[in-house]
Amino acid sequence: MDIIEIIEKKRDGFELNREEIHYFIKNYVDNFIPDYQASALLMAIYLRGMSKKEIGILTDEMRVSGEVWDLSMIPGLKLDKHSTGGVGDKVSLVLGPMIASCGGKLAKMSGRGLGHTGGTLDKLESIPGLDIHETYEEFKNQINTVGMAIIGQDTEIDPADKKLYALRDVTGTVSCIPLIASSIMSKKLASGADCILLDVKYGSGAFMKTIEDAKNLAQTMVDIGKELNKDVKAEITDMDQPLGFAVGNNLEIKEVINTLKGNGPKDLIELCLESGAIMLQQGKIFDNEIDAKNALIENIKNGKAFDKFKEFIKAQKGDVSYIENPEKFPVAKNVIEIHSPKTGFVNKINALAIGKGSMELGGGREKIEDEIDMSAGIILNKKIGDSVKEGELLATLYTNKEEYSHVEKNVLEAFEIDDKFDESNISKKISIN
Amino acid sequence: MDIIEIIEKKRDGFELNREEIHYFIKNYVDNFIPDYQASALLMAIYLRGMSKKEIGILTDEMRVSGEVWDLSMIPGLKLDKHSTGGVGDKVSLVLGPMIASCGGKLAKMSGRGLGHTGGTLDKLESIPGLDIHETYEEFKNQINTVGMAIIGQDTEIDPADKKLYALRDVTGTVSCIPLIASSIMSKKLASGADCILLDVKYGSGAFMKTIEDAKNLAQTMVDIGKELNKDVKAEITDMDQPLGFAVGNNLEIKEVINTLKGNGPKDLIELCLESGAIMLQQGKIFDNEIDAKNALIENIKNGKAFDKFKEFIKAQKGDVSYIENPEKFPVAKNVIEIHSPKTGFVNKINALAIGKGSMELGGGREKIEDEIDMSAGIILNKKIGDSVKEGELLATLYTNKEEYSHVEKNVLEAFEIDDKFDESNISKKISIN
Repeated sequence: MDIIEIIEKKRDGFELNREEIHYFIKNYVDNFIPDYQASALLMAIYLRGMSKKEIGILTDEMRVSGEVWDLSMIPGLKLDKHSTGGVGDKVSLVLGPMIASCGGKLAKMSGRGLGHTGGTLDKLESIPGLDIHETYEEFKNQINTVGMAIIGQDTEIDPADKKLYALRDVTGTVSCIPLIASSIMSKKLASGADCILLDVKYGSGAFMKTIEDAKNLAQTMVDIGKELNKDVKAEITDMDQPLGFAVGNNLEIKEVINTLKGNGPKDLIELCLESGAIMLQQGKIFDNEIDAKNALIENIKNGKAFDKFKEFIKAQKGDVSYIENPEKFPVAKNVIEIHSPKTGFVNKINALAIGKGSMELGGGREKIEDEIDMSAGIILNKKIGDSVKEGELLATLYTNKEEYSHVEKNVLEAFEIDDKFDESNISKKISIN
Repeated sequence: MDIIEIIEKKRDGFELNREEIHYFIKNYVDNFIPDYQASALLMAIYLRGMSKKEIGILTDEMRVSGEVWDLSMIPGLKLDKHSTGGVGDKVSLVLGPMIASCGGKLAKMSGRGLGHTGGTLDKLESIPGLDIHETYEEFKNQINTVGMAIIGQDTEIDPADKKLYALRDVTGTVSCIPLIASSIMSKKLASGADCILLDVKYGSGAFMKTIEDAKNLAQTMVDIGKELNKDVKAEITDMDQPLGFAVGNNLEIKEVINTLKGNGPKDLIELCLESGAIMLQQGKIFDNEIDAKNALIENIKNGKAFDKFKEFIKAQKGDVSYIENPEKFPVAKNVIEIHSPKTGFVNKINALAIGKGSMELGGGREKIEDEIDMSAGIILNKKIGDSVKEGELLATLYTNKEEYSHVEKNVLEAFEIDDKFDESNISKKISIN
């Protein structure tokens, strides 16, 4: 076999077979195929596409390109959840304890934030002491005893994705559904869960800008599950405004605590209940949505979900006193209020602008090597559909930086306030099985 | 400007402007853009295509990527000729002396053979002493005094093409008309000629397999001439059988000598007369085809073309005694005759098989670093349309190798002999202005 022939085959629009995809992934990971041949193939894939079968094979070959973790010795089905990323998306941190408190087993490897999107690992690390590094054995033990673990991706898992992702980033081949889907799914599948729920976001604050693209990506990942005999479900949810009120690392952890205590924002808790009900059914804990939702609601009310969160934080060496007393979290030096210039209804909140604003206040990274200020971010006071009076609080900025006037301006402009509320702005959700 | 944005623009099917193409070529030649980004862009160009304007700009930016030779101090228009390559194509060596003897000025940089196609430089070097290396000054002086020079491409000319050609070769982006056309034309234009005649070959022994592809490539190169205000003309000629009878380096030089003495194969001398008439009109030596052809025929008859060939060989330090006494050329040790197994008419001669056969006998290179046996090759005894009797000679193989039975078999199979001659096999020619 010859990599040039493989490139030419895809270039000419033909389907690659398993031998060819295996040859490419194996030799690329082993550095026998140089980047300049891999990037030509990636561009050919970008422009020619891939069939369901090819995407399934590509995902599978990436999955086995490094270590594959086996969680089958843990009783019960292991559940995983992945969001394609957004602004204020702290769902995993609320949902994990909710389902674990109902007997579900969450086995999750997570990522860091980049640009306007936050990352679950960064949010967790705003809790002093918390460790996101675990060995295979530690991960298994924690899932078995606590019912959940959220850790960073092991460096030995899916090296093909690491190399390909870095190459796509510099060769104009990022926004390609077969490559996005195989990248997400190969990592998920290598980390050992039996069932996966995908939350594919669309809208201004998401990677997928339109609901059509989001559907396409979700369907592609569900199809990969079918090709590889894994239980994969997907929901498509909007990211036209941030999720919940808090954006920024320790600000979001405080919102997680409030939500697990029963005082969460409506959109966040609703999404967690929807997602949790699907996952508990995937895990065969419940056989219908109503029973699953009732159990989840009950465990918020009776405190079991919150207790599970503390147990999880403790298992990963986090200082639980911060969870019990959230006022211990450091607060940024500068607290700036943004007030409404007019009376009316909030029709839009540009999630991208809010995410970028939080990053610029110190709460995110522009480049991978940037350091994060855990106390920086934005708390919204109004969401889409809310009425607002002139002079009323729209949002509060938290930062330790001294120059933030451009963020003030951008956050104010992120709010679109009109005389009437446009019902078409109500968020939409779709499920794909 | 940013190379990733340029890649994405072409990937999405938009036209690149001069600033973007300049940025790419300049920074790629200067090693600021890595191969993996260049190859992604090449694949995007392959699959998205380029407009006439883009191809013109790309050619021009490649042209000025290194040294640009100026021949304007030589009186008269300087003529260049390029063939896309074939089997037995010794046209430049016959045509050059023909037009130079009529007052045309041939300024030609040529290439080496690879695979089944021969190269003019290799053929020249089968003449003892002949030197294809000349400085800019030597090249100018020889064109001015002798009327023609054929040398190797100076290493300082068109470095963009050298890098891009090597990268295309290993990334499945060779067979792309905008990239082929800009590669050929940028080199031609950088070497200083005023007028260019292109001979675009199609058929089994050519790079372009169909007449449609050949037309498309020819038109693209003529269009580049229009974009850049150069007099570029093209002819499309078939390579469904080798040109002339001889294939192999000193075998072809002997055929060149015979042709210049008036004893050449019909197809070769016809193509030289057609091409020469176009070039002499491009060079404003004649204003019509008939006068030009008559002058060319006259100079074959009166020996002036042959004298010009000897003058040219001498100017490039070749031993003219070989030209005067071609029996001095070494003859290969093994001479193998191929006889016809049946009586009938030759309907096809697979030029690719003959070219490969010559290479396998030692007359060509499989890899760039291979050495050539100047005496190896094949002499055809029959051409398409000829009648043949059972047992009659079809071809003769010349080789110093001891193992050649597979070549015997392949050369025999290259001849398609049937009871009747199929008129549709008569070769076609097209001119593009």
